[in-house]
Amino acid sequence: SIDGQRLWSSLMAMAEIGPSPNGGSHRLALTEEDAAGRRLLIEWCRALGCTLRVDGVGNMFLRRAGRRNDLDPIGVGSHLDTQPKGGRFDGVLGVLAGLEVFRTLDDHGIVTQRPLELVVWTNEEGSRFAPAMVASGTYAGVFSVESTLARRDRDGVTLGEALAVTGFNGDLPVGEPRLAGFLELHIEQGPVLEENGEAIGVVTGVQGMRWFDVTLRGQPAHAGPTPMAYRRDALAACARLIDRLQAHAQADISGDTKVTFGCLEIASPSRNVIPGEVRLTVDLRHVVEAELDALEVRFDRELAALTEAFGVETASERIWASPVVDFDTGCIDAVERASRAQGVPYRRMMSGAGHDAVYVSRVAPTSMIFIPCRDGISHNEAEYATPEHCALGAQVLLEALLERANL
Amino acid sequence: SIDGQRLWSSLMAMAEIGPSPNGGSHRLALTEEDAAGRRLLIEWCRALGCTLRVDGVGNMFLRRAGRRNDLDPIGVGSHLDTQPKGGRFDGVLGVLAGLEVFRTLDDHGIVTQRPLELVVWTNEEGSRFAPAMVASGTYAGVFSVESTLARRDRDGVTLGEALAVTGFNGDLPVGEPRLAGFLELHIEQGPVLEENGEAIGVVTGVQGMRWFDVTLRGQPAHAGPTPMAYRRDALAACARLIDRLQAHAQADISGDTKVTFGCLEIASPSRNVIPGEVRLTVDLRHVVEAELDALEVRFDRELAALTEAFGVETASERIWASPVVDFDTGCIDAVERASRAQGVPYRRMMSGAGHDAVYVSRVAPTSMIFIPCRDGISHNEAEYATPEHCALGAQVLLEALLERANL
Ligand SMILES: NC(=O)NCCC(=O)O
Ligand SMILES: NC(=O)NCCC(=O)O
Repeated sequence: SIDGQRLWSSLMAMAEIGPSPNGGSHRLALTEEDAAGRRLLIEWCRALGCTLRVDGVGNMFLRRAGRRNDLDPIGVGSHLDTQPKGGRFDGVLGVLAGLEVFRTLDDHGIVTQRPLELVVWTNEEGSRFAPAMVASGTYAGVFSVESTLARRDRDGVTLGEALAVTGFNGDLPVGEPRLAGFLELHIEQGPVLEENGEAIGVVTGVQGMRWFDVTLRGQPAHAGPTPMAYRRDALAACARLIDRLQAHAQADISGDTKVTFGCLEIASPSRNVIPGEVRLTVDLRHVVEAELDALEVRFDRELAALTEAFGVETASERIWASPVVDFDTGCIDAVERASRAQGVPYRRMMSGAGHDAVYVSRVAPTSMIFIPCRDGISHNEAEYATPEHCALGAQVLLEALLERANL
Repeated sequence: SIDGQRLWSSLMAMAEIGPSPNGGSHRLALTEEDAAGRRLLIEWCRALGCTLRVDGVGNMFLRRAGRRNDLDPIGVGSHLDTQPKGGRFDGVLGVLAGLEVFRTLDDHGIVTQRPLELVVWTNEEGSRFAPAMVASGTYAGVFSVESTLARRDRDGVTLGEALAVTGFNGDLPVGEPRLAGFLELHIEQGPVLEENGEAIGVVTGVQGMRWFDVTLRGQPAHAGPTPMAYRRDALAACARLIDRLQAHAQADISGDTKVTFGCLEIASPSRNVIPGEVRLTVDLRHVVEAELDALEVRFDRELAALTEAFGVETASERIWASPVVDFDTGCIDAVERASRAQGVPYRRMMSGAGHDAVYVSRVAPTSMIFIPCRDGISHNEAEYATPEHCALGAQVLLEALLERANL
């Protein structure tokens, strides 16, 4: 079985690359830090005799040979890039648990039927190049290679240029190798497992998500002499929208409706000027596609009502839609069997966050394994998962992987 | 009577100093542009034989001798500094109408009983050095000279340093000369006169204003996996506060309650992160001090309710309070008589905005004259008042001033 101490050591060693001030990591996609993290992993895998291939968008495939190398491999992995002030586990755990699985198999001289591929997907976070999960999406054919290479960071550097600078512009055609299955271990990034005292989440799918850019245009005016009745206050209108949608989501006792407003910006803000223009981002999520449709209809209705109530013009653009994902039954069951075998409490659950597994699941049987993270916090330097939970997750990964690779 | 064409020409000539791209003016307090504007005014006044004195915070007093120069003078004026993208009338009109009054008196060889002082108050806008009206406040003894000289702009330059650079650090003791009266002509900066087809506002006082800096602290968390019930969303809480107070103000059929939220900032905003911290500015106004107290109590109560409803911690600091001002009855009546004499519709009204007259009224009998501005817009390059209204306002100023100076 898994060496939890060894896994923890690799996690902590990786966290030393691009360390951030408060104990987290700073390895934005395809920066020198990200490249150094990748090189460390390659070194570790080469020591196990794995071979490396890199595709045209920088996805790395580290292959451990099987008995039947003519068969499509089973993939395991996640991402090594982090948020600007990210944690030590988001993504990294899925990759280094894969490494630990390889090491454990080596320790016991086990060779699987199918070959295995430890996969590192490029730029999962979307912090440097938007959107998130862009390289696994390209692998799955959702985005074209050209469009992905042309995505720019804030400084105008393209993803293609960053690949060339770091040397991770490989020659493996994007979409290869075809995978006979894919398993991703990840921290939950939410509080459900911890709150319920459960050690493993058997992930059955991923909720649908839709992103919108909203603009509200009223009329800037002086806060003092402008009567309430004459105002066209873009921020007051925006507050109404947020409050209504928030109340709607909170009223859903199933807890499946989620609305988040992450960014709000006033144009030329000034303490004594009525805001004339506000830009808002909206993130709608639901585990049922039809309910997500209904949520979007309600959002549109609340937005439209602002024109009458506040005299503002509204515009909304849907910039991303990721449909509800149902993972492969065979893979889910393999994860559930492996979880049950540990004798710990677990739950079947939908993922609230998008992961590379979302896109990979379009082209290969896929599922995921969650472990709890402290206070449900991630995308934060304070992100933490216990060594015990990390080891447990890796053990479930090992057993599910063995089942799928020896089918 | 006033030469409206000459007044308009001086307004347009002043607007040429620090012109802004869309037809407004850019003369932040004590910048080279502001200094150039002041020098142009000084030149115009010297041609009339006025004498200049500058006090220790840069307030300029341009004196036109009277028959009894042993008596305290009557002041007239406003400010020449503008917002970063300001208009051509806010402040400037009050100063150049004073100049036009002096010129008209010269044309007719009129010498008033009391001497007159054309006053230019430093840094009324508060855009470069906060708060607004700081130098008239220092003149009135509300702020100490030391504290005013030590106020810093964004680049760390103190008001005292800016005075020295521009050469407007005068040696007249702050608080001198004592004024026997003060009259300020200003654009309304709101829509009331225009909407009601009235040409003059006889300003009876200024509504009370209170400014607050509010911080809401919740918990940043991932938008996807965090159930609504676990969230401590600082922005959702903030939206509730805004919506409640806005609805409260709108429900006041007297129209006297005003609430404005000019600035809202999320700490480390990200599209898929629940906002953990929000900073908000609040501007509360009312024409009755007791009602303003009640409004503040309600604001505190709504703020406190957020802790229970959203699990956020709240903090609020009152950073400025300007009590309701009642202008001097004698001065108001003089303005009303002069307005009635024009044969145009006028109204007695409270000012919604703060003006230098607010602080001057603490140490001298004071009132103000408003004229309409197009669409009620100011603090904006599009700010506009017609030549006819400007001339009419200056005529009222002339007649009220003559009455007060010859008492
Ligand atoms: N895991 C993760 O943060 N994915 C980004 C997309 C999302 O917001 O769910
Ligand atoms: N006139 C003016 O803009 N004064 C600034 C203070 C206020 O907000 O009323």
